[in-house]
Amino acid sequence: MRQLSTQDVDFEQQLTTLLAFETVNDADLLKTVDSIIAQVRQDGDSVVLALTQKFDQHPAMSMHELELSQESLAKAFTNLDTKVKEALTTAATRVQTFHERQVQETWEYKDELGNRLGQKVTPLDRVGIYVPGGLASYPSSVLMNAIPAKVAGVKEIIMVVPAPNGILNPLVLAAAHLAKVDRVFTIGGAQAVAALAYGTETIPSVDKITGPGNKYVAAAKRAVFGQVGIDMIAGPSEVLVYAEGQADDRADWLAMDLLSQAEHDRIAQAIFVTTSAEQLAEVAAEIEKALADLPKADIARDSLKNRGALILVKDRAEGMDVINRVAPEHLELSVDDPDALLDNIRHAGAIFMGRHTPEAIGDYCAGPNHVLPTSGTARFSSPLGVYDFQKKSSIIYCSESGSKPLAETADILAQREDLEAHARSARYRYQS
Amino acid sequence: MRQLSTQDVDFEQQLTTLLAFETVNDADLLKTVDSIIAQVRQDGDSVVLALTQKFDQHPAMSMHELELSQESLAKAFTNLDTKVKEALTTAATRVQTFHERQVQETWEYKDELGNRLGQKVTPLDRVGIYVPGGLASYPSSVLMNAIPAKVAGVKEIIMVVPAPNGILNPLVLAAAHLAKVDRVFTIGGAQAVAALAYGTETIPSVDKITGPGNKYVAAAKRAVFGQVGIDMIAGPSEVLVYAEGQADDRADWLAMDLLSQAEHDRIAQAIFVTTSAEQLAEVAAEIEKALADLPKADIARDSLKNRGALILVKDRAEGMDVINRVAPEHLELSVDDPDALLDNIRHAGAIFMGRHTPEAIGDYCAGPNHVLPTSGTARFSSPLGVYDFQKKSSIIYCSESGSKPLAETADILAQREDLEAHARSARYRYQS
Repeated sequence: MRQLSTQDVDFEQQLTTLLAFETVNDADLLKTVDSIIAQVRQDGDSVVLALTQKFDQHPAMSMHELELSQESLAKAFTNLDTKVKEALTTAATRVQTFHERQVQETWEYKDELGNRLGQKVTPLDRVGIYVPGGLASYPSSVLMNAIPAKVAGVKEIIMVVPAPNGILNPLVLAAAHLAKVDRVFTIGGAQAVAALAYGTETIPSVDKITGPGNKYVAAAKRAVFGQVGIDMIAGPSEVLVYAEGQADDRADWLAMDLLSQAEHDRIAQAIFVTTSAEQLAEVAAEIEKALADLPKADIARDSLKNRGALILVKDRAEGMDVINRVAPEHLELSVDDPDALLDNIRHAGAIFMGRHTPEAIGDYCAGPNHVLPTSGTARFSSPLGVYDFQKKSSIIYCSESGSKPLAETADILAQREDLEAHARSARYRYQS
Repeated sequence: MRQLSTQDVDFEQQLTTLLAFETVNDADLLKTVDSIIAQVRQDGDSVVLALTQKFDQHPAMSMHELELSQESLAKAFTNLDTKVKEALTTAATRVQTFHERQVQETWEYKDELGNRLGQKVTPLDRVGIYVPGGLASYPSSVLMNAIPAKVAGVKEIIMVVPAPNGILNPLVLAAAHLAKVDRVFTIGGAQAVAALAYGTETIPSVDKITGPGNKYVAAAKRAVFGQVGIDMIAGPSEVLVYAEGQADDRADWLAMDLLSQAEHDRIAQAIFVTTSAEQLAEVAAEIEKALADLPKADIARDSLKNRGALILVKDRAEGMDVINRVAPEHLELSVDDPDALLDNIRHAGAIFMGRHTPEAIGDYCAGPNHVLPTSGTARFSSPLGVYDFQKKSSIIYCSESGSKPLAETADILAQREDLEAHARSARYRYQS
C-alpha cells in the first residue's frame, strides 16, 4: 500500500495522481447505448422484452411477466428472518426520520411596494429507481433512494431491477415493500433507463431517474439527461479516515474501517491520513493482519494496491488541506474533538465524527443518505435527499400600484437590451 | 399562427408535436468540442489565446490582455446614464433581497439514542459564469447568475465573456461591477468552458459553471459535467399565457406579452391558452397589429409560425391540464383570481400572477431568478438559486452508547449483503 508524506518534494503531484479517476467515454459503449435508447423509443415493450431475454437470459415471454406484484414484495418481506426484518425496519424508520427534516416548504413575502414574491415547492410526479441486479443488489440502496422520494411526496415510484436468469435478491424486494415502492419491473441495463425516460406501452415514463448501475446504465443516464432528471453519475466509492495518533485510537478499528471501503470494489479508494508516523505503521500492520481472513481479501488487496494510500501530514492544518483537496465521499474523523475540525472542512459527502461512528453505520442505518458525491464532486454536490425529489416555481404577483415602478425599470433595461416587445409589454403596465 | 382546440380529435398528438424539441447531438460538433477541451487541458493558456484570436478575431497578443481590470468594470458602471444606472441598481438590489431568502442553513438534532445527526451547508469555493458575447450579451444575465452565488457565500466568481473583434457590451461590464464579480476574462466558446473546468496557467479552475451559451458552449458544459458542476442545459425560452376572457383582460397586453417571448429567438415558444374563442381571435388580431411596427417582427413572426400556438380549452380544468403538460418556463395567469389556480399547477419555472405581472418584469427586476427550466424540464428542475451555489455534507456523530444498537443493525444488514469488513467494522463498536 502506497505511503505518502506531505514532506515529499513531489507530494502535490503524487496526490493528484492518486486522485485521478475519469470515466472512460468508450465510443463503442456510447454507440451501443444510443442504439438501445433509439430502439426502445421506437418499438417500446417489444424491444425491452427482447433485450431482457437476450442480456439477462430472462425466461419471460411477455412484459406482463416482468412486473412483480405487490403481493410478491410483501411476501418477500414476511419471509425474512425476524432479526433481518427488524434491522431493515429500523434502518427504514431512521432514514425516514432524518429525511423528514429535509422537506422544503413553500414561502412568500410582500415587498415594500405591495407585490407578493415567493417560491412554491412541489414534489416530482413520478420517479424511477434503478437497482442493480446480481452481486451489487443492495436492499439498503432501495431504502436510500425510495424513502426520500416518498418523503418528498412523489406520487409514484417505479423501480427497475434486472433479474439475470430470472433470479432476484429477496431482500431487495422486501426493501421495496418496506419503502412503499409502487411498481417493480425486473428489467435492467440501458433498455430499462430508456423505458423509464421515454415510457413504453407497459412502463410509464418518469420525471427523474436515480440509483447506481454499471457503465451501460451510467452512459444511458447521461444520454437521457434533459428528457428526465438524473442524480449524479456515481464513480467508485471512497473513504478518507483521519486520525492524530491519540491515546483512544484503535489501529484495528481504523484498519477495518479502511477495509470496509476497499472490499467494495477493485477501484474503490481508502485513504488514511494521520499526523503520527507511528500510527501510520500500526494501521498498515493491522490492515495486513485483517486481510488474512477477510472473505473479500482479494478485492480489498487490489483496491488498496491500486488506489489506497497512507498519508503522513505534519499537523492538523495540513490534514485539513489534504481532506479539502480530496473532497472525500466519506470522511471519518477519529479524534477526541471532531467538532473543532468541522469549520475547516469545506468538502465532504458525509462526515463521520469520533471513534464510534464507522462508515458502515452510515451505509445502513444512521439516517442520512448513503448516496453521496464521489470522485471529488463533493466540491459542488450534495448527498441524495428530499430536495432531489422536490422542485421550485417562482411566484411573482404584482399589485396594480406595485407593478408600475418595476415596469418602468424593466422598460429602461429592456430598451438597452434591444428587446422592444419586452419594453412595450412593461410600458403597458405603468402608462395605463 | 397555429390554432388548436382540446376538442380536436388529434389534440393530444398536436400538442406533443408542438412541444417536441430536442437538442441535436451533432457528431461533428461533439468531436470539435471534445478536441478543443483536450487541447486546452494539454496546453492551457497558449491554446485559449490562439482560439480566441481565431474564433473571436480578438487582437490580444497575450492572456494578460484578456483579463479586464476591476477599474475598467467600475468605469463602465460610472459611465452609464443615470437612468440606466438606477435601473440596474434597482434590479440588483431586488434580486439580492429575494435570493437572501433562499439561503439554506446548517442544522442538527439529537436522536433518542444521543447520536447527533445533521446537515452542514457550505458555499462552493469558486464559480465560473459564462456570459454570451455579441447580440445576446445581456447585463440582466450577469446579475441573475452572479448575485445568487455571492449570496451563497462563494468566495470567487470568474466571469468569461467573448469579445468578438475586441468589442464588449459596456452594460455587461457595469453589471459585473455591480454584482461584485471577482475576475473577468474576455474569452468564450468551448475553450472558455474547458479553461474554467480544468484551469490554465492564468485562469483558475472552478467548481461549477453556470450561464447560457451557444451550441458549442452547451456541448462543452455537458462534456465537462462531473469534473465540475453545471446548471441546466438551457433550451429555447418559452411562455404560456393563460386567460379566461374576463372583463379586465386586455388583448393588446396579452399579445405583447406573447411577443416579448417570440422576439427572443426564431425557436422561442409563445403559447396562449384561453377558455374563450372570442378572446383567442382578439389576441390573434392584436398580435398581427403589434407586429406591424415591432423592430424584431421578423424574428417574432418566425417564432410564432414555427413554434407558437393559440389553444382553446373548454374550461379551467382543461386549462390546468394543458399547463401541466407543457410545464412552461414562464407562466402568466391573466385571471381575476390567480391564487385559486395555484394549487392545481404542478409544473412551471416561474408563475406570473394577475394582469400586472408581465414576464418582462420578472426578466429584469422583480427579484426571482430569470434562469428557469425550459423545454418541460420544470417537471423536475427549479429556477437557478442560492441552493445551486451551496452544497451539503451529512453529519453523523454517534455517542459511545448510542453507537451500539446502530452498529448491531449495520452488522446484521452488512452480513446479508456479504460485506464482511463492513460487518466487522460495525461489530467492533458494539462488542468492545
